[in-house]
Amino acid sequence: MTQRTVDRRGFLKAGTAVLAGTLVVPLLADDGTSAASLGAPMGDYGQPSPFAPARREGIGAHPQGPGAGASSTPLQLLNGTVTPNSLHFERHHSGIPQIDPARHTLTLYGDVHQPLQFSYEDLLAYPLETHLYFLECSGNSYRNTLPDAQDATAGALNGLVSGAEWTGVPLHYLLAEAGIKPRAKWLIAEGADASANTRSVPLSIALDNVMVALYQNGEPLRPSQGFPMRLFVPGCEGNVSIKWLTAIKLQAEPAYTREETSKYTDLLEDGRAEMFSLRMAVKSLITTPSGRMTLPRQGVVEISGLAWSGHGSIAKVEVSADAGRSWVTAQLQSEPGPLRLTRFRLPWRWQGAPAILQSRALDDQGNLQPSRDAALARYSPMGFYHYNGIQSWQVNAAGEVKNVYV
Amino acid sequence: MTQRTVDRRGFLKAGTAVLAGTLVVPLLADDGTSAASLGAPMGDYGQPSPFAPARREGIGAHPQGPGAGASSTPLQLLNGTVTPNSLHFERHHSGIPQIDPARHTLTLYGDVHQPLQFSYEDLLAYPLETHLYFLECSGNSYRNTLPDAQDATAGALNGLVSGAEWTGVPLHYLLAEAGIKPRAKWLIAEGADASANTRSVPLSIALDNVMVALYQNGEPLRPSQGFPMRLFVPGCEGNVSIKWLTAIKLQAEPAYTREETSKYTDLLEDGRAEMFSLRMAVKSLITTPSGRMTLPRQGVVEISGLAWSGHGSIAKVEVSADAGRSWVTAQLQSEPGPLRLTRFRLPWRWQGAPAILQSRALDDQGNLQPSRDAALARYSPMGFYHYNGIQSWQVNAAGEVKNVYV
Repeated sequence: MTQRTVDRRGFLKAGTAVLAGTLVVPLLADDGTSAASLGAPMGDYGQPSPFAPARREGIGAHPQGPGAGASSTPLQLLNGTVTPNSLHFERHHSGIPQIDPARHTLTLYGDVHQPLQFSYEDLLAYPLETHLYFLECSGNSYRNTLPDAQDATAGALNGLVSGAEWTGVPLHYLLAEAGIKPRAKWLIAEGADASANTRSVPLSIALDNVMVALYQNGEPLRPSQGFPMRLFVPGCEGNVSIKWLTAIKLQAEPAYTREETSKYTDLLEDGRAEMFSLRMAVKSLITTPSGRMTLPRQGVVEISGLAWSGHGSIAKVEVSADAGRSWVTAQLQSEPGPLRLTRFRLPWRWQGAPAILQSRALDDQGNLQPSRDAALARYSPMGFYHYNGIQSWQVNAAGEVKNVYV
Repeated sequence: MTQRTVDRRGFLKAGTAVLAGTLVVPLLADDGTSAASLGAPMGDYGQPSPFAPARREGIGAHPQGPGAGASSTPLQLLNGTVTPNSLHFERHHSGIPQIDPARHTLTLYGDVHQPLQFSYEDLLAYPLETHLYFLECSGNSYRNTLPDAQDATAGALNGLVSGAEWTGVPLHYLLAEAGIKPRAKWLIAEGADASANTRSVPLSIALDNVMVALYQNGEPLRPSQGFPMRLFVPGCEGNVSIKWLTAIKLQAEPAYTREETSKYTDLLEDGRAEMFSLRMAVKSLITTPSGRMTLPRQGVVEISGLAWSGHGSIAKVEVSADAGRSWVTAQLQSEPGPLRLTRFRLPWRWQGAPAILQSRALDDQGNLQPSRDAALARYSPMGFYHYNGIQSWQVNAAGEVKNVYV
């Protein structure tokens, strides 16, 4: 049972605003903030404000693999649940190929009654579906598995997760048209980049909610996200959502490709390796305040963060300001739904004392986000995939926020 | 009663895919579409594919007003319901001011117990809410009120509507803190651009779901959308969602500003002018196939479009291929919700005969989108705001699609 040792009055009732610190002006005067002159003309493609520049961060190239690396969403600069396409995290194995859709095809073969090949134009004639989904790299937050807590931003530590509205062709239409042979139990999806990244997905998942995605946040996919088409496997580790999708083979067994033997397996505590651990676990983090920020002043602080689960919808998020000794239920700011990011918030009154802020999410399947220690204990010390431990942010007396382990 | 004179078998059952035209390959061969070489390196800010360029269109500058004009979302190039921020429609009265948030304030005054002034930093400490909403210019689709049907794209004709995930501070928190005097019934919102665009909103609406928006699709507002803050009045004509919001005054009566006397009023058939007709009416249009497209071939065509209503959620969308003589219920491709865009779809088998495609939306308040004639009949021939008549696309025997009046 959780011991409640800390005064919970530091948290305000979620959803109410009782702010004393707002400046009061005795009378209205022209404060000179209005523009006296004509603004910039219209363009055909909008740009962010130079006063609010947001760029991806943590851009890392793999020392042994040219074109291999990742870049992270700057979670601490964003709010809501949609990630603009320009800021969606990326993970590439051989750089970003520039593909002409007129020269790209998707081939369906293997244990099917009739092999089929689809052009981009062909796919546009199929039924589409549209959903908000999160996408998370299996290695997201791996830096928090390292022995020492890294002093970095929320995005640099945990930004290999993003949210978007994905639109694509439900894969079951294409598979039904090819005709699935009874022995087929897995699909093997292959990308058209130079790495030919290839992963196996059980048909039980593939026939459920997997799509061949063509649009992201309304527009055609970006090259960095797989244009002209990618597999999208909701709730599962990002690397199975094969970008630049060019072939799907059905067969009785998984392919045991290099990506699923040497790479994306989870070494367990007992020395065995867990394979095809596709679903991302329930997880959350506070995005403001977060690492490398400084609280501007004492008083009410809006705590804001994201929660998600590869097993379903977010049912509840709790926030602690005392390193997990006591918890308060946060308000869900955005509408929760299956396999999508959910934004939570909670007003917190900071009165200058040091604090450790944490969040923990519970999904509608009963999965509760574990502590860092409990999350690490599942895997060998060599493992760093599927890490979903609670993120702790230390606030010191000066208001400086820092990643810590507790 | 609608007469059903046309064979409905041309429509396929929504949600099923029975496509005969897909190329069948006898065996799999390396088709040379895979990239053999390393792709482009990662950047900190993603870009669209040069093979799928999407730009705003219909960029019109007002002949008598420098900096005044509009630009439209290219609806025919998009799918899903979210509009990327770079492609969100714009409407400016004096260009786009470049505002430093550190020098910008929002003042609340008038019939309040305590005038208040808020910095951008102040507002970030308030509770936020997040919703998918549409935004539509009151003059959207005005070109379809002109005597002759314009040969233009769906975006150029109807693209002064967009969808986004908006995040902001519910206005009722700020008004409650200032204290609303009993006589106050309206708020007057003023923007900080050179035009000082100023509109009146009844408190009945303002206390319901109006927010001071700070984020759009996850990122801070763009300058063209009001950075650092805008009023957002869901479901109402775009010009009341005052950009670069700098002052809100409460008073007993509307302000009757130039924007609401000479400009955004609706001249009725009997010569009177309707004022404060804020809510946008139920509306839909087919975005593919649409104006200036050519159907690539006979066979199954995926009909796709958008529907929305300022009065509630979309309950149903119907599609006709015979100029409204018979209707088939479309599938709602995205999850409907209050005051948001809803994507609908329907497979249609085109066998080379000329056709007139239409859609009509019904909202959950029982409002049905009217024919062009019925929509025009509400207003004087001089009026062009709040037009929501059915959009008709003619498909000729060559598959060319064109805007027509029927």
